[in-house]
Amino acid sequence: MSKQELFNNIIQKKSFLCVGLDTDIKKIPQSLLLEEDPIYAFNQAIIDATQFYCVAYKINLAFYESLGTKGQVTLGRTVTYIRRKYPDKFIIADAKRGDIGNTSELYAHAFFESSSFDAVTVAPYMGEDSVKPFLNYPGKWVILLALTSNKGSNDFQLMADANGERLFEKVLKKSQQWATDEQMMYVVGATQAKMLEDIRKIVPNHFLLVPGVGAQGGSLEEVARYGMNSKCGLLVNSSRQIIYADSTAQFAEAARQEARKLQEEMSKYLQWIINAK
Amino acid sequence: MSKQELFNNIIQKKSFLCVGLDTDIKKIPQSLLLEEDPIYAFNQAIIDATQFYCVAYKINLAFYESLGTKGQVTLGRTVTYIRRKYPDKFIIADAKRGDIGNTSELYAHAFFESSSFDAVTVAPYMGEDSVKPFLNYPGKWVILLALTSNKGSNDFQLMADANGERLFEKVLKKSQQWATDEQMMYVVGATQAKMLEDIRKIVPNHFLLVPGVGAQGGSLEEVARYGMNSKCGLLVNSSRQIIYADSTAQFAEAARQEARKLQEEMSKYLQWIINAK
Repeated sequence: MSKQELFNNIIQKKSFLCVGLDTDIKKIPQSLLLEEDPIYAFNQAIIDATQFYCVAYKINLAFYESLGTKGQVTLGRTVTYIRRKYPDKFIIADAKRGDIGNTSELYAHAFFESSSFDAVTVAPYMGEDSVKPFLNYPGKWVILLALTSNKGSNDFQLMADANGERLFEKVLKKSQQWATDEQMMYVVGATQAKMLEDIRKIVPNHFLLVPGVGAQGGSLEEVARYGMNSKCGLLVNSSRQIIYADSTAQFAEAARQEARKLQEEMSKYLQWIINAK
Repeated sequence: MSKQELFNNIIQKKSFLCVGLDTDIKKIPQSLLLEEDPIYAFNQAIIDATQFYCVAYKINLAFYESLGTKGQVTLGRTVTYIRRKYPDKFIIADAKRGDIGNTSELYAHAFFESSSFDAVTVAPYMGEDSVKPFLNYPGKWVILLALTSNKGSNDFQLMADANGERLFEKVLKKSQQWATDEQMMYVVGATQAKMLEDIRKIVPNHFLLVPGVGAQGGSLEEVARYGMNSKCGLLVNSSRQIIYADSTAQFAEAARQEARKLQEEMSKYLQWIINAK
């Protein structure tokens, strides 16, 4: 998917919401446990309920890998379900991979050829040759970790060099030599919304994937205020707040309402761009 | 496995060799392609041929994950094979994971409970709460990326703060607050052997997992000279040099010879420790 296509979808849906499918068998309604593949059944219902209000789905691979081969099957089915039924959705593999070149190549093949993800999250620690293999697929995206939403982001990401330039800023700068804003996005946690002002000075045109709204405590309004650019430039992810909004058989309707609430709020912020034109 | 048990195995085998099972279906002998699970057949033969000369196996998960559910089955079988037949081997999941706490917990469960790996490689970028969930399993190890063997390690790992302290040094220092040398090791590439002097000043007692000998160009002698401590403190990994030493039906014998060559060289360096006592 191109950047323009993603932007068009955002304008059409009046939403820059990404729904995170962090599906945990221990948290899904009891009634689904009778299904042959409970997690897939849950995902289908969540996807059908939220698709009208979002432009993207993010699949956290740990939740599937921790279930072994069964989880792999569920993961594959989920991607196929979205791809076939809602072909305009942007599908993100939240994998946080990054390894030496020949290994990153294999991961890239797995996500972009064996599966039909649009994007994969990648950790920058190992540098250019660990990221580049993911960039060999036209229309596919790397979403590089820059400033994450967790407490541990303080441990290394804020380290500053002698000129005061911080590690996450170096990541933002250096990685622009590897790919343009047509193939690279960045993860910036919503819990760091005020940092978005600094970040936009370095990457004014890139899309940012923003986790941490909701359960992790980030504010959507602040993210929009400090992070939005003229092409929106934001995908805001919410997982637990949506998919676990209700733990009864009404879970899908509750998820729909949560997604709609976020979409309605996003719609207001998108108006800022439209008004500015 | 405890640090002392690992050291005992090293002394007994006169080897600190780790064999990397980076098994690629495109590189294994044609004759194996008739097997029901060619990669598993290859791994079994490599393991049987090399087990006398090594103390550890490192399984690069990308090579298995890129094959989907079939790869997951092969991976599980390979771990079980080593665990049952050679129970004293230290088995490493080379996964380079690292995510927010609830996600790292799932990965930890996958590697240490669903599978019976002894250790997992973890990327430090996201900090303490991304690493800690892997430390909740007594006898299991985190192997944290410090200074990797690839070219891209220059991009961020060597970044220095105002006091000249580099990112990989910060990783080594800060992570010692999270676990002792009984649960944490570090990845230090063999291509950076001279840096081992600096590294040993910060982590004198830890084990280091050293990839990059062989195909990636690192020197075993330099690694031993600059990296060894009184309990050896080294696991040196070789993958391609051993497992692809020969591409014919004689591959296992060739792998055996390569592993033996490395073991014999290691045996000399281990003598330094024994002589020093």
